[in-house]
Amino acid sequence: MQNKMVIKSAVREAGNDPIFKVSGMAKKRIAEIGKENVINATLGALMDDDGNLVAFDSVYSVFDNLDRTEYASYAGIAGTPDFLENVVYACFKHQKPDAHIRAVATPGGTGAVRHAIRNYADTDDYVLIPDWHWAPYETIANENGRKVKAFPLFSDDGGFNLEGYFGAFDNLLDEQKRVLSIINSPAHNPTGYSLSDGEWEAIKAHYIEKANENPDYRIILLCDIAYIDFAGHGESARDFMNILTGMPENVLVLYAFSASKGYTMYGLRNGAILCAAPTEAIADEFAASCAYSNRGTWSNGTHAAMTTLSQIIADDTLRAAFEAEQEKYRDILQARAKAFLDAAKTADLEICPYVDGFFISIPCENTEAVRDELITKDFFIVALKHGLRFAPCAVSEAQCRIAPEMIKAAIEKVNG
Amino acid sequence: MQNKMVIKSAVREAGNDPIFKVSGMAKKRIAEIGKENVINATLGALMDDDGNLVAFDSVYSVFDNLDRTEYASYAGIAGTPDFLENVVYACFKHQKPDAHIRAVATPGGTGAVRHAIRNYADTDDYVLIPDWHWAPYETIANENGRKVKAFPLFSDDGGFNLEGYFGAFDNLLDEQKRVLSIINSPAHNPTGYSLSDGEWEAIKAHYIEKANENPDYRIILLCDIAYIDFAGHGESARDFMNILTGMPENVLVLYAFSASKGYTMYGLRNGAILCAAPTEAIADEFAASCAYSNRGTWSNGTHAAMTTLSQIIADDTLRAAFEAEQEKYRDILQARAKAFLDAAKTADLEICPYVDGFFISIPCENTEAVRDELITKDFFIVALKHGLRFAPCAVSEAQCRIAPEMIKAAIEKVNG
Repeated sequence: MQNKMVIKSAVREAGNDPIFKVSGMAKKRIAEIGKENVINATLGALMDDDGNLVAFDSVYSVFDNLDRTEYASYAGIAGTPDFLENVVYACFKHQKPDAHIRAVATPGGTGAVRHAIRNYADTDDYVLIPDWHWAPYETIANENGRKVKAFPLFSDDGGFNLEGYFGAFDNLLDEQKRVLSIINSPAHNPTGYSLSDGEWEAIKAHYIEKANENPDYRIILLCDIAYIDFAGHGESARDFMNILTGMPENVLVLYAFSASKGYTMYGLRNGAILCAAPTEAIADEFAASCAYSNRGTWSNGTHAAMTTLSQIIADDTLRAAFEAEQEKYRDILQARAKAFLDAAKTADLEICPYVDGFFISIPCENTEAVRDELITKDFFIVALKHGLRFAPCAVSEAQCRIAPEMIKAAIEKVNG
Repeated sequence: MQNKMVIKSAVREAGNDPIFKVSGMAKKRIAEIGKENVINATLGALMDDDGNLVAFDSVYSVFDNLDRTEYASYAGIAGTPDFLENVVYACFKHQKPDAHIRAVATPGGTGAVRHAIRNYADTDDYVLIPDWHWAPYETIANENGRKVKAFPLFSDDGGFNLEGYFGAFDNLLDEQKRVLSIINSPAHNPTGYSLSDGEWEAIKAHYIEKANENPDYRIILLCDIAYIDFAGHGESARDFMNILTGMPENVLVLYAFSASKGYTMYGLRNGAILCAAPTEAIADEFAASCAYSNRGTWSNGTHAAMTTLSQIIADDTLRAAFEAEQEKYRDILQARAKAFLDAAKTADLEICPYVDGFFISIPCENTEAVRDELITKDFFIVALKHGLRFAPCAVSEAQCRIAPEMIKAAIEKVNG
C-alpha cells in the first residue's frame, strides 16, 4: 500500500479486529433469536452463565466509593506510591522472588508488553514469541519498530517444546546478542497451556548456560501473567516465580501484570510492568526507563483504578472478600473448561494441551471456513491461523458440554 | 550513561519530574504552616480558591451513575462508536471544519501527540515545536525515535514570530520533505499565548505556497488544543478551525483533543486525535494508522470516561449544565489571570504575551535560583529553561494579585 500523508511504516489496513467483528455478529444473532439459542465463545472476558459481563462486587464497591478527586486527579507518571507498593503483592502474592523488585504502572498488560519491547529489544530486532500467541504481540512489535520470531510452542508429547525454544533462542542470541522472550504462562492465550515447574527449571538452566558463555549477552524474559489469577488452586500458579531467580546478572526477568481479567478492570486500563532484577542498579535502570516511557507515550494511568487495587490489597477484609469472589469465578471457569475437555474426549476432538485459563484452542485446517460453518449453527468462535479459539470464560458449562461435538462436526464437514 | 540491560536508547536519568517535586515541597509546607500562608502555583490543574481540585459536578454526576459494566468492559480499540461521534462536537463545537473528520480515542492529549509523532514524522526526523513549549513534546519524540527542533515563538512586538517560524519550517521541509509542526494554541502552555486569526491566516498562506511548490512535500499541523475550553468567550477560541481548511492535498491538519482540563478528567485518561483531512482517502488512512497505533501501544481507552463524555454531549440538558459549569470556572480563571496581569503592570514585571489559559510565564535568567529564592517566601513556582511558570489555575485571585511583586523582588535579588 502506498502512503498518502502518513510515513511509509505507518500505512495500515483498515477494518475491524476480526474478534470484535465475529462477536458483533453473535450479538446481532442473540438479538434475533435469544441468547439461550446462541453460543458466543469469542470474547476474552469473564461472563456469567446468562452471558453478562462479570464485574466483581468486591472491586466496584470500592471503586464506587472513592472521593471524586481520586477519579479526577493525575496519578503521577510512574503510578501512585500506594499502587506501586500494592501491585507487588497483586503480582507475586506469597511467591515474591528474592530479587530487586520495582513496578511501573501501565494501561493493562498491553502497556507492559509495549515497554518491554521498546526498552529491552533493539530497533529492527526480533522478539521471541511462540507460534500459538496473542496476535497483538506482533502489532506491538511492529508499531514500535521491532519484529517477532516464532518458536514451536508444543512438543509432540504435548509439553512445552524445549528443544524448539532453545534452538530459536540460541539463533537469535547468536545474531542479536540480546533476546527478549515473551512467555505467556500460566493459562496461555489462546491455548490455556501452563508451563510445568520442570519446564521452567529447564529454561532457567539454559539461560544460565548461555548467559555464562558470554557476559555481553543480554537475556530478558517477559512473563505475561494476564490470566494468572484464573490458574491453579491457591498459590500454586505462582510457584515458578521463585524458580526464576538466582541467575547471572545478564539475565533479567520482567512481569506484565494486568488488572483487566483478575480484577475485572478491562475497561479501566490498569496494569504494571515489574522487574525481579539481579542487582539494584538493574532495577533502578528499569524503573527510570519505564517511567520515561510512560511520560513519552500515555503520560500516566487511570488514577481511580490504581487507588481501588491499592485499597483492596492493603486492607485484609477487602482483600479476603476480593480473593473469595475471584476464587468463586475461578471455580466456575475451571468447571466449564472441564466440561469442555470431557466432552472433547467423548467426541474425539483434538485440542491443544490445556491447563487453565480463558481459552481452549482446537488445531485444524481452513479455520475461517470451519468458523463460518459453525456460524450457520449459531455458534460463534474465533478463527486463528492454526486453529479455532473457544472461550469457556464467556459461555455456560452447559454450552461447554455441547460445543466439542459441534466443532468436530464442522471440521469434518469442511475438511472431510 | 552506559546501559546494563536496557538497549542504549532507553537509558534514562532517574529522578522525579521537577514539577511534581516542587509541588511536593509545597504540599509539605502547607501541612506545616497552613494553606493560607503558601502560594502553590506549580500544578497544571484547576483548583478552587481553597486549593482543592475542581471535579465538575456536571461530569461526575454522570460518571457516578453509569452501570458497572461501563467501567468494567473494554471500549473497543479505536474508541466506542458513541464517543467517536460525540468527541467531534467536543473538539470543534460549532466551528466544525468543512473537511473529512475522523477521531480515534487516546489517553489524554499525550496519546494524541504520540500518535501524530509516530505516524506523521519519520524516524530520526525533527518535529517542529516552539522554544517555549510543553516539555513532554521532546520526551514523546525521543521515546518514539524522533527529535525536536525549536523555532522562536515570539516576535519582538509580542506576536507569533511568523518569520522565525517560516524560516525553521522551510529548512526542515527542505531537508526532510515532510514537516510535522505542533502548535499549542489557544492558551499555550506555558505562556498562555493564543495565535490571532490573522496569524493563522498567514500560516495557512505559507502552507499553501510551500505545498504547491512540490507535490511530494508533506505538511502536517498538529493543533494541541488541550486548554481550549478555558480560552476566549463563547466560541471565539475555535474560529481558527475554519481558517485551517481549503489547503492542498499535501497539507493535513490534526487536532489533539484532551478531556483532562476541559472535563476535569485528568486522571481518567481520556482524549482523542482527530483529523480534518482534505480527502476521504487521507481520513481513512489516518483512522487506520491511529487505530493500529492504539492496538500496538495501550490497546484501548478508559471506557467509562468515553461514555460520560458521550452522554454529556448527546444530551441537551446535561450539555447545557456542563457548559455552564465550565464557563463559571473559565470566568474564575480569567479573573485570576487579569489580577496577575494588572499587578504585573504595577510591579513592572515583564511577562510573556498572555491571552488565556492555565499558565503565565515570566522570562528571566537563573530560573532555578529565582525559584529557590521564592521558596524561602513560601511561594512555589516552576522553573523553566527561559523563565518561570506561574499557574493561575491553581491559586486564588488574591494570591494572583500579590504574586508579581514577590516574583519581581526575587528576580532582582538573584539577578541584581
